[in-house]
Amino acid sequence: MTVAAALRNALGDIVDITEGSLEAARADRSGHSSAGRPIAVVHAETIEHVQQVMRIATETRTPVVVRGAGTGLAGAANAGPGEIVLSTMRMNRVLEVRPDDLFAVVEPGILNADLNTVLAEHGLWWPPDPASRDISTVGGNIATGAGGLLCAKYGVVRDAVLGVDVVLADGRLLHLGHRSVKGVTGLDLTSLMIGSEGTLGIVVGATLKLRRLIVGEICTLTALFPTVRAAAAGSAAVTASGAQPAIMELMDAKALSAVHALLSLPLPEVGTSQLTVQTDGPAAQAEADRIAAVLQECGGEVTLTSDRDEGERLLAVRRSMHGAMAALGTTLIEDVSVPRSALPAMYDEIARIEKAYGLEIPTVAHAGDGNLHPNFIFEGDVVPEQVWAAADDLFRSAIRLGGTLTGEHGIGMLKSRWLAEELGDDQWQLQRQIKSVFDPLGILNPGKVFTSA
Amino acid sequence: MTVAAALRNALGDIVDITEGSLEAARADRSGHSSAGRPIAVVHAETIEHVQQVMRIATETRTPVVVRGAGTGLAGAANAGPGEIVLSTMRMNRVLEVRPDDLFAVVEPGILNADLNTVLAEHGLWWPPDPASRDISTVGGNIATGAGGLLCAKYGVVRDAVLGVDVVLADGRLLHLGHRSVKGVTGLDLTSLMIGSEGTLGIVVGATLKLRRLIVGEICTLTALFPTVRAAAAGSAAVTASGAQPAIMELMDAKALSAVHALLSLPLPEVGTSQLTVQTDGPAAQAEADRIAAVLQECGGEVTLTSDRDEGERLLAVRRSMHGAMAALGTTLIEDVSVPRSALPAMYDEIARIEKAYGLEIPTVAHAGDGNLHPNFIFEGDVVPEQVWAAADDLFRSAIRLGGTLTGEHGIGMLKSRWLAEELGDDQWQLQRQIKSVFDPLGILNPGKVFTSA
Ligand SMILES: Cc1cc2nc3c(=O)[nH]c(=O)nc-3n(C[C@H](O)[C@H](O)[C@H](O)COP(=O)(O)OP(=O)(O)OC[C@H]3O[C@@H](n4cnc5c(N)ncnc54)[C@H](O)[C@@H]3O)c2cc1C
Ligand SMILES: Cc1cc2nc3c(=O)[nH]c(=O)nc-3n(C[C@H](O)[C@H](O)[C@H](O)COP(=O)(O)OP(=O)(O)OC[C@H]3O[C@@H](n4cnc5c(N)ncnc54)[C@H](O)[C@@H]3O)c2cc1C
Repeated sequence: MTVAAALRNALGDIVDITEGSLEAARADRSGHSSAGRPIAVVHAETIEHVQQVMRIATETRTPVVVRGAGTGLAGAANAGPGEIVLSTMRMNRVLEVRPDDLFAVVEPGILNADLNTVLAEHGLWWPPDPASRDISTVGGNIATGAGGLLCAKYGVVRDAVLGVDVVLADGRLLHLGHRSVKGVTGLDLTSLMIGSEGTLGIVVGATLKLRRLIVGEICTLTALFPTVRAAAAGSAAVTASGAQPAIMELMDAKALSAVHALLSLPLPEVGTSQLTVQTDGPAAQAEADRIAAVLQECGGEVTLTSDRDEGERLLAVRRSMHGAMAALGTTLIEDVSVPRSALPAMYDEIARIEKAYGLEIPTVAHAGDGNLHPNFIFEGDVVPEQVWAAADDLFRSAIRLGGTLTGEHGIGMLKSRWLAEELGDDQWQLQRQIKSVFDPLGILNPGKVFTSA
Repeated sequence: MTVAAALRNALGDIVDITEGSLEAARADRSGHSSAGRPIAVVHAETIEHVQQVMRIATETRTPVVVRGAGTGLAGAANAGPGEIVLSTMRMNRVLEVRPDDLFAVVEPGILNADLNTVLAEHGLWWPPDPASRDISTVGGNIATGAGGLLCAKYGVVRDAVLGVDVVLADGRLLHLGHRSVKGVTGLDLTSLMIGSEGTLGIVVGATLKLRRLIVGEICTLTALFPTVRAAAAGSAAVTASGAQPAIMELMDAKALSAVHALLSLPLPEVGTSQLTVQTDGPAAQAEADRIAAVLQECGGEVTLTSDRDEGERLLAVRRSMHGAMAALGTTLIEDVSVPRSALPAMYDEIARIEKAYGLEIPTVAHAGDGNLHPNFIFEGDVVPEQVWAAADDLFRSAIRLGGTLTGEHGIGMLKSRWLAEELGDDQWQLQRQIKSVFDPLGILNPGKVFTSA
């Protein structure tokens, strides 16, 4: 019996082998595709379904690629020939909301934005807010360790999960973590699952740490600088001043012009780079005033508003970045992270790399936490070798500055060849061995994260 | 050649075999001791020393117990016959303080309070504040995943470490994590080290996430309640109200009377239990007023002050708990943690257990995060079977309420027999296998955490 037939026998209609579904499962949003179609997409509706898939996969030694919404940017959910796709999108219930204890228990397939709509009725929210919040799943957010615009102030996924339920490669179900905010019982396997990109197990449930909705004013300001270095120095000065912006985003000149062109706004002067800052909570106005003063001192031309609509209009420029890049060609969105004071130096490195490789690399940054997204634009489907060479140089620069090659998107397929370089061979081997403890047959997302060089 | 001789050959004077040192290394502050003296205490001064010890230990298959200040309450640092003690206390330098990036790089042996004295000069602090901050090491805090009074608002150790340098059982040195605030490069081994109690490797350096010192007023309030259940309900109401106290401590009637007796204060009325709350930051006064109103609504008799000395005087009652218990006899300090709304139910369980086992169990709680410390008092050195039976009942109750058997002190020797019960056999086995990846010969802290039932 083929694997597809075994799945169909055990699980019936939720096993999908339609061409459209198989084709869609070959790619995520990185623009990269697997070599061909996977065997089947299983639309799991229950934990038991997930366990059955894993039992069959174990018996038949068939690789399994877990898939949330497929919005990843590292090729981590891309599935190819001989692989089963396990989709979590139908496991999308909110099982429990506890305003008194500030936690919620959810299934993995719910979209981040849908969860937050439910939570808002209780005056609550789950802080991780990737720009993809409308289209990505909570399970995917956990598996990638996602961050977002607000995370400099309110934390990333790693700060917002109390426990996860996990199905192992052989179908066993584990409950990791607990519902109490504190606990040091044994090794912290919950943290180990966060950012594990489908290589250790399938997250089938999560207990999430919530916050109350922030009340009060929101202030928004933009500051224009003549160069990206000046803007980066401005953002580092804000961090060093002790102010705590909720959002602080940096757009370099190429990014800013591309967005202005997309939105038909007047083009900024050559070189002009922009910081967009938002403050919230009881001290929003005072903090915004303080930040404005710091940025003016650094030579920024500041516009400040406490009007929400006007604020959204200012932020819309940043939010249009993805669209502006897509309009220019195929994009490889990179994701390096450095200590915040190293932002100016990292922008210097990017300028150097642009020159050395003859490329343009529009770059935005979550400046509040030192996470940069350099965008490599090219024609066609395949990343040119020249671009990989430049990316290689970029990664090394970030690591040299005390940072890392991925701040929030993960390793997936696209960065696995640099993983050992950052971790060192000893740590890389150790991580692979840990992966083997969870998945001795190597059937969970093979070829991702821990491929050999 | 004996192991002691091999150590002495390689390391000279830092190998200590004086009777006093060997005796001291048999016990931590739990009141429990190992069966006899260890082989030697090595006072490592450098990473190279640590590596040399581990190489000799690996060659000779000799167990190694890492020891910070020995203030642990779970027997995790207790060393016995045939074991080498590796003390980190001389590795106590602050290597780097970065006010602009809010991190510091330190050696493991520095005392928490000493570190914070250095940081204060830069206007900074490291939030984890165990009540033992004056006497415990940062390395010990990391290895136990310590919490403290302020951690409901400012986080525990798990929230305050960017990276650690670790020497493995075989002497290899790994650098885990990075200096950037964000990063999802491979598995999160930094988190795995936090709370690992000397079973995975030796923390020889740490990059700590700092905060700026909080400016502004500090308000302190106490609220007296006729019963502990009323006080617990009061604290749950504060959490549910959305207020964010910096400190919220609960003392039940037995704890409160014992402290009053110790401090020669007038004895409270029978049953009287107390909440002590502190607020800080720009909204300190407003939040204190709001909390006072909530507690009055719950029947509390509130005293509120914004005078710092008066505040310290109010808090001194809570801080004297340890001394008051020690004055009563030998203490087994327990450490269960539950969701905050379950605090009243957990106090009901404690009352039931007191009755069922004929014991008195004075209990304080970090009520802001649902972490309770029930104190079992007895005569002599050995925990009576009756006390263990009651503790067993206590652990099961906490787990049933969605909590865990240790909120901040760890498993060590004293709780290893309950670990598998909480984790489940499958998870327990998996954790043991991960331990084996780090330490295949089982020479790091054997008999702690993962002992068989
Ligand atoms: C326009 C756009 C903006 C973006 N902005 C951000 C941003 O600001 N911050 C950010 O961090 N990312 C961002 N991303 C990337 C992406 O949205 C995130 O990585 C997201 O967390 C992926 O969620 P997903 O449901 O789409 O997961 P998928 O892409 O389906 O999967 C991603 C990885 O997680 C694994 N996985 C998914 N579900 C599970 C599960 N239940 N159990 C185990 N493993 C699982 C997959 O196997 C894969 O390895 C953006 C993407 C786009 C297209
Ligand atoms: C009065 C008093 C109050 C306390 N209050 C609190 C409190 O509020 N919150 C709290 O969490 N704890 C508290 N404790 C418990 C204790 O102080 C903490 O667990 C502390 O973190 C232990 O630090 P230490 O340096 O004494 O470690 P030790 O007791 O020496 O060791 C503890 C464990 O950590 C391991 N270890 C130590 N250093 C390293 C290293 N460098 N690398 C690897 N492993 C290492 C040891 O092997 C052992 O397993 C209290 C203790 C006392 C006596």
